[in-house]
Amino acid sequence: MKQTKPIRIIAMGKYLPKAVLSEEIERKHGLPIGWSQKYSGVDNRHIVTNENNGIMGARAAEEALSKASMSLKDIDLLLCGSGTFDYPIPNQSSIIKAEMKDGNLYDTPAIDIDSTCLSFVSALDFAAKILDGVCYKNILIVSSEVSSIGINPSNWETLTLFGDGAAAMIVSYDENSASTFIKGGQRTYSEGVYHTIIEGGGLRNHFKNNPYNVDLYSFKMNGRHLLRLARKKLPEFMDWFFDDIPYNLESTDAIIPHQASKLGMSVFTSQYTLRPGQVKETLAKYGNCISASIPLTFMDAVEKGEIKRGDICFLSGTSAGFSIGGVLLKY
Amino acid sequence: MKQTKPIRIIAMGKYLPKAVLSEEIERKHGLPIGWSQKYSGVDNRHIVTNENNGIMGARAAEEALSKASMSLKDIDLLLCGSGTFDYPIPNQSSIIKAEMKDGNLYDTPAIDIDSTCLSFVSALDFAAKILDGVCYKNILIVSSEVSSIGINPSNWETLTLFGDGAAAMIVSYDENSASTFIKGGQRTYSEGVYHTIIEGGGLRNHFKNNPYNVDLYSFKMNGRHLLRLARKKLPEFMDWFFDDIPYNLESTDAIIPHQASKLGMSVFTSQYTLRPGQVKETLAKYGNCISASIPLTFMDAVEKGEIKRGDICFLSGTSAGFSIGGVLLKY
Repeated sequence: MKQTKPIRIIAMGKYLPKAVLSEEIERKHGLPIGWSQKYSGVDNRHIVTNENNGIMGARAAEEALSKASMSLKDIDLLLCGSGTFDYPIPNQSSIIKAEMKDGNLYDTPAIDIDSTCLSFVSALDFAAKILDGVCYKNILIVSSEVSSIGINPSNWETLTLFGDGAAAMIVSYDENSASTFIKGGQRTYSEGVYHTIIEGGGLRNHFKNNPYNVDLYSFKMNGRHLLRLARKKLPEFMDWFFDDIPYNLESTDAIIPHQASKLGMSVFTSQYTLRPGQVKETLAKYGNCISASIPLTFMDAVEKGEIKRGDICFLSGTSAGFSIGGVLLKY
Repeated sequence: MKQTKPIRIIAMGKYLPKAVLSEEIERKHGLPIGWSQKYSGVDNRHIVTNENNGIMGARAAEEALSKASMSLKDIDLLLCGSGTFDYPIPNQSSIIKAEMKDGNLYDTPAIDIDSTCLSFVSALDFAAKILDGVCYKNILIVSSEVSSIGINPSNWETLTLFGDGAAAMIVSYDENSASTFIKGGQRTYSEGVYHTIIEGGGLRNHFKNNPYNVDLYSFKMNGRHLLRLARKKLPEFMDWFFDDIPYNLESTDAIIPHQASKLGMSVFTSQYTLRPGQVKETLAKYGNCISASIPLTFMDAVEKGEIKRGDICFLSGTSAGFSIGGVLLKY
């Protein structure tokens, strides 16, 4: 087992665009009223109107900085951990920084980490490993996701599942705090590489030769294959993750899973004997916000007092690719 | 100054698609013969036919593994540091891993780092910081770039400048070697955030509402503004980078710059008194291969014997966003 590190989450921020109830979506697209809640478990999600990834990320970042009584000047590295983006070039973190009110004042390095839905977890893991108290004292992580634009409205499952939103977190190297980073890690199971995909919009099916059609340019998931793979690999991953540390999943104070889907989360919870309230959920109120789901859910639980300082927290999820990842920390 | 770390580049690999001479491009697109060499400094570049980012990256990675007498099993983390991609989802490293011959056999985590042209440098910097000899002994970095598809043929400057290709590098934590990582870092100057951009293809100008036109979906750079900003910020960056380490740019054995453009590289070299041969160049034979330029140029110099074990090497460049970054290491 590696030694724990004195890493502390010092502040969080979020930005949520306009709330849209499931009933509104059901009426607009001719779904039976109540379908969303029944099948996707989502009552409400937020959807961009004039916002974009850059603006939402900047507002969430500013809120986190304000809560920490910090400015961008105090930040040694800005990491954007997101799966969606404003432009193919430049990278999203540069856009978020430029959209922040002090973005032009400070030369904070802006770098993107992408492991799709796990991007926030990967960024937090990398941040904790890079923070050294010398060159890196404070790292700002931002996950900002717009899923609504890449959704196929005729696919009711994804139409009702996803939401837009952004979350930000400042993590610091702080030897005077009891907070620690315990472990982070990911496994990538390549047999599931194409179980979740947007086929068009990159270079393989370039827009030049592939005019827009909603199927090619929308997010697709092969739910059945995905669930089967997740069910098979989750126990393997958990054994690997907890093997060399004096913790196990059951003994954690809080589990903050990716809000993948009602069924996806049940795969996770049904395999373990967990206490009521141990697994945090925001699926009903935010939907699946891609990489922003985990930090939004973490923040929600902290604000409600469900996660307290000293709690052992496990942030974990699955992503396209197909990967499972997690970070274990003492808040 | 931070202590140096026992990090060693143990092997590299590359993949280059079909060679295309400047004269072929000039004939095809009606440019005056000799224009490319004169204005962009490029005689030859490589352009994909059936390849893509995933395939090129996988072949480069396999070559590096083979040279190191390793398999994916020995790799603790696969980082893709690239600016272009096959699909918006999943992330590129997952595709590269899945395309590798042992991709399905091992669960190596696959994560992307994106700082556009600096992606390789950022990934190398993060890898060196994450490698600890315990959880992370060997990290495989892959930069695979297809620029040819996103080029506007009526913009002669970019048409003749860019090339496709991939490079891979394995970096290891090795206390028994004399090789060291000395420093890595980046600064992001947000006033230049939109000086280089692909405006369409992300969520701000989504395909759905923006039919293909070559201008919107091609790479654009505002050369004049970019050069002015680079000229202003390079000295600032170099002062910052070398301030707390007992090295300076002039005393390095080898400088491996991003092969941005003939003019871009002259901004870099004209401000310093450098020895002949100190700055490595592959612009004439590969063109600008986005993030793959720096590792391809590094590999080329090592293969020619121009960089030897023990040499102090500075890998540095600029990127969209606008950033300047670098890594200093003893090879």
